[in-house]
Amino acid sequence: MHVVNVNKDVMKANNELAHSNKKLLIKNRVFAMNIMGAIGSGKTTLIEEAINALKDRYRIAVIAGDVVAEMDASRFEKLGVRTVAANTGRECHLDAKLVERSMENIDLEDTDILFIENVGNLICPVDYKLGENVRVVVVSVSEGDDTVLKHPMIFRTSDLAIVNKVDISEAVSADPSKMKADIEKLNPSIPVLLTSRNDRISIDRWIEYIESYLE
Amino acid sequence: MHVVNVNKDVMKANNELAHSNKKLLIKNRVFAMNIMGAIGSGKTTLIEEAINALKDRYRIAVIAGDVVAEMDASRFEKLGVRTVAANTGRECHLDAKLVERSMENIDLEDTDILFIENVGNLICPVDYKLGENVRVVVVSVSEGDDTVLKHPMIFRTSDLAIVNKVDISEAVSADPSKMKADIEKLNPSIPVLLTSRNDRISIDRWIEYIESYLE
Ligand SMILES: Nc1nc2c(ncn2[C@@H]2O[C@H](COP(=O)(O)OP(=O)(O)OP(=O)(O)O)[C@@H](O)[C@H]2O)c(=O)[nH]1
Ligand SMILES: Nc1nc2c(ncn2[C@@H]2O[C@H](COP(=O)(O)OP(=O)(O)OP(=O)(O)O)[C@@H](O)[C@H]2O)c(=O)[nH]1
Ligand SMILES: [Mg+2]
Ligand SMILES: [Mg+2]
Ligand SMILES: [Zn+2]
Ligand SMILES: [Zn+2]
Repeated sequence: MHVVNVNKDVMKANNELAHSNKKLLIKNRVFAMNIMGAIGSGKTTLIEEAINALKDRYRIAVIAGDVVAEMDASRFEKLGVRTVAANTGRECHLDAKLVERSMENIDLEDTDILFIENVGNLICPVDYKLGENVRVVVVSVSEGDDTVLKHPMIFRTSDLAIVNKVDISEAVSADPSKMKADIEKLNPSIPVLLTSRNDRISIDRWIEYIESYLE
Repeated sequence: MHVVNVNKDVMKANNELAHSNKKLLIKNRVFAMNIMGAIGSGKTTLIEEAINALKDRYRIAVIAGDVVAEMDASRFEKLGVRTVAANTGRECHLDAKLVERSMENIDLEDTDILFIENVGNLICPVDYKLGENVRVVVVSVSEGDDTVLKHPMIFRTSDLAIVNKVDISEAVSADPSKMKADIEKLNPSIPVLLTSRNDRISIDRWIEYIESYLE
């Protein structure tokens, strides 16, 4: 009871901040993606692929969310894009406040695409809007092909779902087309991509998805 | 600030309940393990293996934590052990209250081993004691071999660490011995097991670990 009341206050404050983040992003014509997903599902890898494919044509920045580490931030920095490490400390998700503070270190006027990599978690990021234009959820076959039905909310509230690492489906006894079907059952209008970093065509589809939002 | 104060109240209430759970478990001579770990890292599979190996000699019960689903609970039920599905609703971790309520549906006098499978998450379960005797953390190579250093707290506060799915290390470009070394750096006294469900000897070591607590 106690907890629920406070959560309402926290959620309200977060929603308001997310709204002001969104206004700032729109004013600066920045396209912002919140990349959520399971621990180690391939979020950083997919963002790296997109950066490599798009950085000659678009000005890209990244906010790399993590509890304490800065390993993902260093991976992005190596690609020569503006990167801010956003450490949550003990929290298992990014929130709008942390994104607001991170954006203070990014020249938004000089940015076309902002990737925000969330903390590996399929539960709490659902509740915390950040001000993003598009929410992406990434799972991999390796989590097991029951992962989708175990975490319905994140698939219901995302704009794109990616089932990654399809190259190792057999080794982990998972059926990616069952996962796709489960996602479509939960959210009939969501596009679903099956990807593997070893399959160039699948990665190209992910990049085309991003480009479909840019002129 | 607001959040921190309340969290203190929540944590205090949880610690008190965990303590009373622990007393109840000790009084009934139940050995309880809190199995934490990454999403899809193999928690259910490892508990299933242990149940199969131990159920003829010990009376086993399971609390299967999940946000909404009951898939893991059905897997345990199939093995003929007392199973309670503990759904957290929106929470990303089990807490002592939910375990207390779940234990009301278990005849503790008739139980030697209680497995508590936590929600797939490497962050929040750290803060929530349940009353368990032993805390186990499971990661798999598939999350990437930087996962340990990204989540130091759970390795510092666990009694056993398992690096699972070592059979697919190459396919996901992960080095399990780096992961073991990282864990031992964070927590020099913790035993670390490298396991694969395809390697019987590695599974036997996990079962021997459990038996070392039983007479
Ligand atoms: N086989 C295979 N492995 C992959 C693929 N994509 C990523 N990986 C591996 O999966 C591991 C995790 O990849 P990351 O991109 O770091 O995943 P992440 O979701 O950013 O991880 P966190 O930020 O730690 O939650 C790494 O060891 C990668 O090499 C893929 O398509 N196939
Ligand atoms: N290759 C390989 N796959 C494994 C191993 N252990 C489990 N798996 C696969 O990994 C997936 C997840 O296994 P689970 O035991 O359900 O994992 P979990 O940690 O209980 O998952 P959640 O409860 O959903 O977080 C399944 O598809 C298993 O078949 C292993 O040692 N090697
Ligand atoms: Mg990452
Ligand atoms: Mg499980
Ligand atoms: Zn959270
Ligand atoms: Zn939590």
